[in-house]
Amino acid sequence: MKLSRLQAFSDGVFAILITILVMDFRVPPYSSGHLLAAVLRQWPVLAAYILSFMYIGILWLFHHDLFSVFAKIDRNVNLLNLLMLFAITLINYPTALLSDTLMHHERADLQVAFMSYAGVALFISLTFLLLYRYLNLHPELKSTRVNAQSFATITYDPLRSIVIYFLSIVATFFSVSFGALLLVGGIIFHFYAYLHLSRRLIV
Amino acid sequence: MKLSRLQAFSDGVFAILITILVMDFRVPPYSSGHLLAAVLRQWPVLAAYILSFMYIGILWLFHHDLFSVFAKIDRNVNLLNLLMLFAITLINYPTALLSDTLMHHERADLQVAFMSYAGVALFISLTFLLLYRYLNLHPELKSTRVNAQSFATITYDPLRSIVIYFLSIVATFFSVSFGALLLVGGIIFHFYAYLHLSRRLIV
Amino acid sequence: MKLSRLQAFSDGVFAILITILVMDFRVPPYSSGHLLAAVLRQWPVLAAYILSFMYIGILWLFHHDLFSVFAKIDRNVNLLNLLMLFAITLINYPTALLSDTLMHHERADLQVAFMSYAGVALFISLTFLLLYRYLNLHPELKSTRVNAQSFATITYDPLRSIVIYFLSIVATFFSVSFGALLLVGGIIFHFYAYLHLSRRLIV
Amino acid sequence: MKLSRLQAFSDGVFAILITILVMDFRVPPYSSGHLLAAVLRQWPVLAAYILSFMYIGILWLFHHDLFSVFAKIDRNVNLLNLLMLFAITLINYPTALLSDTLMHHERADLQVAFMSYAGVALFISLTFLLLYRYLNLHPELKSTRVNAQSFATITYDPLRSIVIYFLSIVATFFSVSFGALLLVGGIIFHFYAYLHLSRRLIV
Repeated sequence: MKLSRLQAFSDGVFAILITILVMDFRVPPYSSGHLLAAVLRQWPVLAAYILSFMYIGILWLFHHDLFSVFAKIDRNVNLLNLLMLFAITLINYPTALLSDTLMHHERADLQVAFMSYAGVALFISLTFLLLYRYLNLHPELKSTRVNAQSFATITYDPLRSIVIYFLSIVATFFSVSFGALLLVGGIIFHFYAYLHLSRRLIV
Repeated sequence: MKLSRLQAFSDGVFAILITILVMDFRVPPYSSGHLLAAVLRQWPVLAAYILSFMYIGILWLFHHDLFSVFAKIDRNVNLLNLLMLFAITLINYPTALLSDTLMHHERADLQVAFMSYAGVALFISLTFLLLYRYLNLHPELKSTRVNAQSFATITYDPLRSIVIYFLSIVATFFSVSFGALLLVGGIIFHFYAYLHLSRRLIV
Repeated sequence: MKLSRLQAFSDGVFAILITILVMDFRVPPYSSGHLLAAVLRQWPVLAAYILSFMYIGILWLFHHDLFSVFAKIDRNVNLLNLLMLFAITLINYPTALLSDTLMHHERADLQVAFMSYAGVALFISLTFLLLYRYLNLHPELKSTRVNAQSFATITYDPLRSIVIYFLSIVATFFSVSFGALLLVGGIIFHFYAYLHLSRRLIV
Repeated sequence: MKLSRLQAFSDGVFAILITILVMDFRVPPYSSGHLLAAVLRQWPVLAAYILSFMYIGILWLFHHDLFSVFAKIDRNVNLLNLLMLFAITLINYPTALLSDTLMHHERADLQVAFMSYAGVALFISLTFLLLYRYLNLHPELKSTRVNAQSFATITYDPLRSIVIYFLSIVATFFSVSFGALLLVGGIIFHFYAYLHLSRRLIV
């Protein structure tokens, strides 16, 4: 398979996933004349949507730059990419859990929602880690756009994300707000990791 | 990231969004033998679908011509484009509110639906405004297909849209019909702005 | 806009539409231990799905060959294409009406479903007619792959389809089966028209 | 139609199908404070999702390599490909049946779900068989990347799959677990067939 085909397929999955998230925005149940209150009560749907749109958007940018590191791909890269896409599509589920539980404010349920989200995020970072490792073990796949040293400094970013998401899961046991903060922090860290990677590519 | 990749991804989001809108067309609840009446009562779903299909279609044409102004893109253009796509996917929600409230004719609910729609439209135009500004501040990104002067005349179009949608929101407080008229007017104005832009590109 | 971009966008809409149709296949309500009977009662969903998959598949092949007649496109072709895609996405709705009414066998409801389907099909053929006319009036858009004479023989195909679907609507008033037969006949006729067109292109 | 266009359309359908599967992951009904138990009871949804994601992912890889055997395509290949895509989109339905019946553990219903899944898989393999046959009968479509002999050894793979899925259906009558095992075995066999084919292509 050619690299461009893998990229086009992955872009397709990203575009679909980021768009179908909006389908969780449904008309809320409301009694005639009180739509406004019902719409305002839906703020968690918007909040969860913004979080996941941002997250998937960053993952897409990241995925793009990561694969521009490859000069060619082999069958294992293809399978690792499918595993990564699998992990990413899962985001849809904790997003829905988050919107729902944030509307009811029950602590135990909120913990489940935030932990599921952080768990999926941890899984996604794990698939990135696997791909980075594989790339390090197979330098023949690397394009000459990145020198070995600068790539080495990037290679621990997925591990850092995994630690953040793991801490988020643990923290949620004690404080939902603190766990949530770490989760959002993890996603913002992805953005820095992306800037990190993309700057290396330009050099 | 190459410009062509950003365009393909954006095209994908537009194509998905414009197609999933049709999924709000569901079989209405009906008692045996009275489907016709139930289907006819669904005219607002069709009306809202036509409005949003038209709107997204124009945005797609617009987006296409706007990005043909670019000779290359940088990271900020990429992020602004994601923000713009985010705003555009939101259309799905006020479209559903519109179909639903038009079926029940309750004034207060209709106001919420039309204001939400105009609010999303205003947000979309705002993202266009940001992109135009960014492009004006970074002439090195511009292709030579557009001369500086003719682009300057276009640059206020998003601002004009924002004013129209803002007036639509205000007007809806006093008269739903007049607010709706301004909303539709705003979308038609996009079409003229598109013709405006696309003519400049040919020159 | 370049022709290739319009084709890619249209292909995207076709691919999405043909795939989301399958989402109407839901797990039927059933009492424990009686899933088989419930699944078998769902045969109309399968029948409607096969019909619409076939129809959209043919329209896609048709669309492809039709646009290979163009050497270039202008703004009006773009708008006519959006109108055509709008008409085609509507198929989703009568498909759902068909699955639902075929499960309940109420004559009046079946009439509504079949007429809606034929109505949408008539509208689709109308947009093809408009595009053919436009192409005939603007020979400068035509590629040299088709000679004027052979294209003239094809040019009445959409009109023929419109007549078939119109007859189907009328027939449904008197006999649902006969109306349905004409509808299926119309879709099969598209297939012949497609073979017709694609053979002309090879010459 | 050019081969690249057929591939892009097929890739689109695969990308959409593999992504919309995740939409069956809905927030489960739960009483306040007991989301965790409700989420854990949903394990069959995850299991069915993993199975189908894996299956569609392999089919995509397979489809890709299979079409790289073609030097050009004709109209019949196009129609056979549409039939194949039709069969593949059907996977969505037995996946939903599987998630649902695995949550209720009623033997008769589980049999229906597993048989439907194996039935769809058998149908998919049948369309592959047809395409292989057609390709063998029309050597002029074949690229020179594959020599006749090595292709001949691959040509029975779809037949082997059909036998496995047929045995799975029969076995399900006697033992659901054994039928399920054969089904999963069939999907794993696809993976080997894919490796088989892709290795032939490299030679």
